[in-house]
Amino acid sequence: MTKYVYDFSEGNKDMKGLLGGKGANLAEMTNMGLPVPPGFTITTEGCLEYLDAGGFPPGLMDEVDDHLRALEDSMGKKLGDPTDPLLVSVRSGAKFSMPGMMDTVLNLGLNDESVMGLAQQSGDDVRFARDAYRRFIQMFGKIVMDVPGEAFEEALDEAKHAKGPKTQDTDLDAEDLSALIDRFLQIYQEHTGETFPQNPRRQLELSIVAVFRSWNGKRARDYRRQNKIADDLGTAVNVVAMVFGNRGDDSGTGVAFTRDPSTGEKVPYGDYLPNAQGEDVVAGIRNTLPLRELEQLDPTSYGRLIQVMDTLESHYRDMCDIEFTIEKGKLWILQTRIGKRTALAEWVMAYDMLGEKLIDEDTALLRVNADRLEELFKRRVKADGAAPIARGLNASPGAATGAVVFSADDAEARAKENGDKVILVRRETTPDDYHGMIASQGILTSAGGTNSHAAVVARGEGIPAVCGADQIKIDLGSRSFSANGTTVKEGDTITIDGFTGNVFVGELPLEESVLEKARAGDAQAREERIWKAFERLMTIADDRRRLRVRANADTPDQSANARARGAEGIGLCRTEHMFLGEERVDAVRQMIFAETEAEEEAAYGRLLPLQKGDFIGIFEAMDGLPVTVRLLDPPLHEFLPDLATLSVEVALGEERGDDVTEKERELAKVRQLHETNPMLGLRGVRLGILKPGLYAMQVRAIVEAACEAKAAGGDPKVEIMIPLVATAPELRQMRDELEPVANEIQARESVSLEHLEWGTMIELPRAAVTASEIAGAADFFSFGTNDLTQTAFGFSRDDIGKFVGLYEERKLVPANPFVTIDVAGVGRLMRIASDEGRGANAELHIGICGEHGGDPASVAFCHEIGLDYVSCSPFRVETARLAAGQAAVGEYASASA
Amino acid sequence: MTKYVYDFSEGNKDMKGLLGGKGANLAEMTNMGLPVPPGFTITTEGCLEYLDAGGFPPGLMDEVDDHLRALEDSMGKKLGDPTDPLLVSVRSGAKFSMPGMMDTVLNLGLNDESVMGLAQQSGDDVRFARDAYRRFIQMFGKIVMDVPGEAFEEALDEAKHAKGPKTQDTDLDAEDLSALIDRFLQIYQEHTGETFPQNPRRQLELSIVAVFRSWNGKRARDYRRQNKIADDLGTAVNVVAMVFGNRGDDSGTGVAFTRDPSTGEKVPYGDYLPNAQGEDVVAGIRNTLPLRELEQLDPTSYGRLIQVMDTLESHYRDMCDIEFTIEKGKLWILQTRIGKRTALAEWVMAYDMLGEKLIDEDTALLRVNADRLEELFKRRVKADGAAPIARGLNASPGAATGAVVFSADDAEARAKENGDKVILVRRETTPDDYHGMIASQGILTSAGGTNSHAAVVARGEGIPAVCGADQIKIDLGSRSFSANGTTVKEGDTITIDGFTGNVFVGELPLEESVLEKARAGDAQAREERIWKAFERLMTIADDRRRLRVRANADTPDQSANARARGAEGIGLCRTEHMFLGEERVDAVRQMIFAETEAEEEAAYGRLLPLQKGDFIGIFEAMDGLPVTVRLLDPPLHEFLPDLATLSVEVALGEERGDDVTEKERELAKVRQLHETNPMLGLRGVRLGILKPGLYAMQVRAIVEAACEAKAAGGDPKVEIMIPLVATAPELRQMRDELEPVANEIQARESVSLEHLEWGTMIELPRAAVTASEIAGAADFFSFGTNDLTQTAFGFSRDDIGKFVGLYEERKLVPANPFVTIDVAGVGRLMRIASDEGRGANAELHIGICGEHGGDPASVAFCHEIGLDYVSCSPFRVETARLAAGQAAVGEYASASA
Repeated sequence: MTKYVYDFSEGNKDMKGLLGGKGANLAEMTNMGLPVPPGFTITTEGCLEYLDAGGFPPGLMDEVDDHLRALEDSMGKKLGDPTDPLLVSVRSGAKFSMPGMMDTVLNLGLNDESVMGLAQQSGDDVRFARDAYRRFIQMFGKIVMDVPGEAFEEALDEAKHAKGPKTQDTDLDAEDLSALIDRFLQIYQEHTGETFPQNPRRQLELSIVAVFRSWNGKRARDYRRQNKIADDLGTAVNVVAMVFGNRGDDSGTGVAFTRDPSTGEKVPYGDYLPNAQGEDVVAGIRNTLPLRELEQLDPTSYGRLIQVMDTLESHYRDMCDIEFTIEKGKLWILQTRIGKRTALAEWVMAYDMLGEKLIDEDTALLRVNADRLEELFKRRVKADGAAPIARGLNASPGAATGAVVFSADDAEARAKENGDKVILVRRETTPDDYHGMIASQGILTSAGGTNSHAAVVARGEGIPAVCGADQIKIDLGSRSFSANGTTVKEGDTITIDGFTGNVFVGELPLEESVLEKARAGDAQAREERIWKAFERLMTIADDRRRLRVRANADTPDQSANARARGAEGIGLCRTEHMFLGEERVDAVRQMIFAETEAEEEAAYGRLLPLQKGDFIGIFEAMDGLPVTVRLLDPPLHEFLPDLATLSVEVALGEERGDDVTEKERELAKVRQLHETNPMLGLRGVRLGILKPGLYAMQVRAIVEAACEAKAAGGDPKVEIMIPLVATAPELRQMRDELEPVANEIQARESVSLEHLEWGTMIELPRAAVTASEIAGAADFFSFGTNDLTQTAFGFSRDDIGKFVGLYEERKLVPANPFVTIDVAGVGRLMRIASDEGRGANAELHIGICGEHGGDPASVAFCHEIGLDYVSCSPFRVETARLAAGQAAVGEYASASA
Repeated sequence: MTKYVYDFSEGNKDMKGLLGGKGANLAEMTNMGLPVPPGFTITTEGCLEYLDAGGFPPGLMDEVDDHLRALEDSMGKKLGDPTDPLLVSVRSGAKFSMPGMMDTVLNLGLNDESVMGLAQQSGDDVRFARDAYRRFIQMFGKIVMDVPGEAFEEALDEAKHAKGPKTQDTDLDAEDLSALIDRFLQIYQEHTGETFPQNPRRQLELSIVAVFRSWNGKRARDYRRQNKIADDLGTAVNVVAMVFGNRGDDSGTGVAFTRDPSTGEKVPYGDYLPNAQGEDVVAGIRNTLPLRELEQLDPTSYGRLIQVMDTLESHYRDMCDIEFTIEKGKLWILQTRIGKRTALAEWVMAYDMLGEKLIDEDTALLRVNADRLEELFKRRVKADGAAPIARGLNASPGAATGAVVFSADDAEARAKENGDKVILVRRETTPDDYHGMIASQGILTSAGGTNSHAAVVARGEGIPAVCGADQIKIDLGSRSFSANGTTVKEGDTITIDGFTGNVFVGELPLEESVLEKARAGDAQAREERIWKAFERLMTIADDRRRLRVRANADTPDQSANARARGAEGIGLCRTEHMFLGEERVDAVRQMIFAETEAEEEAAYGRLLPLQKGDFIGIFEAMDGLPVTVRLLDPPLHEFLPDLATLSVEVALGEERGDDVTEKERELAKVRQLHETNPMLGLRGVRLGILKPGLYAMQVRAIVEAACEAKAAGGDPKVEIMIPLVATAPELRQMRDELEPVANEIQARESVSLEHLEWGTMIELPRAAVTASEIAGAADFFSFGTNDLTQTAFGFSRDDIGKFVGLYEERKLVPANPFVTIDVAGVGRLMRIASDEGRGANAELHIGICGEHGGDPASVAFCHEIGLDYVSCSPFRVETARLAAGQAAVGEYASASA
């Protein structure tokens, strides 16, 4: 026969599935000999069977009665006894902590009679007993029977009001409470249509049912969906003998952490509230005292508590979070669990515990959260209560302050010429704005999501950004924007917080991060524990990981930055930016407008030396490490003005009688190049095939630069990547065209590049499922998971802003697929491509260069499917190194919880 | 030891792989006892080994010598004999007929000496012998040694010119030819740097090498790529004793077909040229005679030929194409193969041969080409030499003539009000033009490819169309277009030919097809053989096929049309058109501009009765058969004006001081709804989720219509399809919302619909690879292969016009993937979805509703992966039925070869 009820002495901490987290830890502590009030746990199995059958499974309540009797025996009291009643608390407790469920009912067992027994047993403290009873009616009514909480609150307020202004709860005397109890019983009856149950056994049964049912409550279901907790776990119910922290000044209740959860420091930390029950701490009715003051108030209990904390930490080998109550000088431990902590504390604690030999290296590595590492490097706004004027999406972490500018050109001009710090404010950004974006301290957009151009570039460049702040209305006419009634003019200073999405008027103080200072060489910062922790754990991660980590870097500066952060090469050097900039725009226009091959070749001739220079710098910065250069990917119309804007200009010009010949020519070209769906249009390898001179020019620039670097004693490792390949012949024919170009240059320069590879992005579903064919023409694959996600889902990153929020909220997508690889769909395509690509070409090396390369969960997936490397933005290199180490250790710690 | 050479008596027709098509058929005929000149075949294996090693494999030339000696013995002549030389022809012949390869060298064995022996043996016909020699030098030089053909042609022309104007080849006498031979030998030496080989054995060896090498010639390689012929087949070489058709009036040469290849009629058909060699027929120097005239010229040979033809047809059980030569009254058969024929002849012959019991039903079914069936229903232009003014893509077959109009509204107005026949001429079309397109006789666009909106709609509606005729410049200002110097005004009559892409000025006569007349009930047409053939073979196809065939039909008319063509339901009823039209446009705008739910609901309220009416008509037309209705798919901005156009209107209005308030409001909405990549934007199920009232209204209209149809005694079978699903929760949540709507109506109307299913399109790669999840929420899947191809390849159908031509030409894609399913990529995704969807839900039924559903190769693939049905445009229903029957018979006859 199934056993549905376990005494605390029968369980242990590893039985969380059956007993829930709370029950398992109470059992563990009981068996450790810690002062836990006696009690028992009804299993999650009991819950599931109840929910399934719509009633208690046979035997369950009999077991409860047996355990209740045992509890009565051990306490020497009986539930409902009019002279000396046993009181119990009923607490839910699932495998994972779940705020959505029924929480706790205290003082169960009280009724119109036993309340007097409690008074007697408390030294005739009638006030205490009646207060306990009114609390019980309130809690039971609200939590078990769904009576609106306000009904009780209002009655309580009325009672206090009747005694005069400023009356506190504690000012109500026994008489007042007697009247209040009557009122509460009345309220209970009004809302439930029943009298308040006087039978304690009935009270208990109803409470157990309420806990069981709360598992399927809407809030609980939502919480589970949100946190990816399975629906078939059920909750346990803990029935625990009551202890009272509100029995005078020698009583109290508190929460304690074995270490400081915000700094990680190894000091006891917590709050204490004398003469109170736990709910008072939660309700925040009175101010709590810092835990250390308990040492003065009750040194004995404090000493015992410290001892319990030490015991628990040694036992659990992690920082514990403890709820305790002192009843008339006796310490009781009501709950413990692994404590939550800040990102900073995570690192410090893991490092310290490693030093204390409390945990081993692997464990220390898994204790930190790779998702939160980047935050530790960023500046923060010290808002100190300042009110934001708008709030958008926290698109790129960090804080920035500067003068408002409304165009990329202004941003660049003010930053370069005047050395001003500027915040670029735009509706949204385009590739044309790049030069202004990188000149800015921060970026603020009123449209676009966390995967808009602005957000992606900002994260890539490590620039703080707030995006999609839609309360902001930009009026370019008056060079200003307004938000919720505040108008901000060009040149005015604002501060943005990329952690919260907040936008403030004026300059708020910013706090530099210790890690960033330490990395920059600040000697004092390097003495700090967080830096030492960082260095130690990263060393462990590097030692464990199998994945290499490269960076997505497009310039020599970015390359150097990436290398400083531990990048082992460049996985994606985008060449788009090499077609932008004042000195190049003319040549690019010449290339686009060319009507003869000669004109086009002349344009390439102008671009070649400039781009060659770019590559030389990159090869120098990454000397000895592989550099994957992606040939031009975006459609050519991205280098021309927008169709609607230009159409208006031409129409207005004509209307006004201006000479619009030149503009009309431009418009004709824009129309010709215009695409309905540019994402699926003439770009990538298609461009390379249609304009063979273009890729040949790029290959020439790359290979000439590499030859020059090598001749100068360097060790350039070149990997040339063809984007957007859908079919094997595309790649094969491009190689057939481009390899001779590379060979010819090496022959001419008498240089032989040892490492010159040719490969492709796998960023289209067709490429993924025909990878075995494509692999025959490739030295390497690099997953372009941004585009692969776009095409697999049919989601345009530029357009999903309108629905992706609702989609995430309603769990229509498994997380945001542009942040974390969608394992079931995109991931499956990657696995097919990786397995079959390698099957066809054993020499093939495979990496990923989409935004996902810096996302810890995605890194774990890349590890799992056996990729050779991940490539991510320079600012994510440490995150990826850490995540790769953690993945190798075999488990991805998604949260330090 | 490998045998490299086969005597004709050693092979048979099934040895095409080893002996090539020509050699295998020559062997077959030899063994049938037909009068084939003796000879032998060098195998394709010999060719491959030669190409591999760069020289003859050991033993090959020894075998050739042995067979040559045997040939000499059987002919009683010796190669190079100065008194009685054996002459041979050397002919290439691969497994498949390949125009790119070396063809034929005749008269091999002649040299300065043996030419006199030939003269002697020909009754001292010196002229004949010298003519044979000069032909040999010319052919050998040109074909074997790459001497430019013009060099010989010019010398020949000079020789004729010297004799006076109008001199024919035959006017050159023996003396002239002697001089010409000297000149030819000189030309040979000039171009090759060698003297002409006098040794016949050397001539033969060089010729064999030339044939072998021609396998890897550029033209041959291109041809193979174009026609998907493997590169590792090699070619055989046939060495055949020469016979001469140019030995006087009792000699001649010809080509004969056992039945008329253009009508299919069972009559001997062909051409005959007296006193000539085969090359003269090919060169077209003299006009050939109809074959039947041979009966008068040489009744004995004619009789023998008819006998041979009968024998061959009985033997091959198909129409044979024969090359023959008569040498001094003796008939020789030089080659035979299965003859090519027109689409019409294919059907007539298959039907006749079935009647003659020459072939069985399965064979008859496989003899016709499903790809060409649709043509047989279309009208044709009788151009009679009229010159087209422009040429575009043959986007939709058939011919049309009518008055030029430049807008959809004009088309509709003139067609409806005046009953005019119009041709809609536009740069390209959009969904807004639909009403005008269906009112037109034909459609002509100057931009867009064979998969542009115009082309797709035209094919779907069976309207002839020429698209992308880019010589046409439309000038809307003057209501005219010009093309290559001709200007055509609005109202002028033009004729377009959707078979050829030609555009003509004026009305050209059009020829109605017999099949179309017969289907319309024309008694005379129904007596014609083609109609009987059609009926008989379609009955066989229907009997054999396992796939059901449905139609894509959006209106009652289309549904009735589809049903008349044998459709077994509707696989895709698009509802887009139900949001267009004068009476609806207001309600749709109200829906889009709604600022409150009430406004939106009011708009739905106006649309509901109209759409319900549409569905009633469709259910009536398809009574008893399943109708799959797709809920609204396109993005809402498709119902509003284009951004650039509207931007210009607003800017100009402002400039002119007009009141643009309303337009500005519209522009704001257009901007808000504007998408960078609408294909990947807010459409399909995403729209359904964001605007739940929209789908609910559609479901209400569908279910109310079905209930009404059922109440009226009908049998509506309803399948509701949610488009663009990427994840299982999308479908599940939509069903959770919509099923109650359907249930409520049935309850209210007291009608229970027996067949009411809910399913989804599988048109995104993610949906395909997660089909097992989605199948749990679906009653059916329907592959949307248009979108699946777009997303798998990352090809926007609207935009690929710029590169798809080059892609097809360079074989960068396996055929046009929008026409024929790309088996390796898209097909693999379909297979995964089909297998895993059925694995998860055994009740799931699966079809396809993309354009591919009417493409025979794609139908065969759908059969292969076990789909339940294909759905295609009504005009393709017979094609699909036929292709499905053919697929079931086990083999897809891609061409009747």
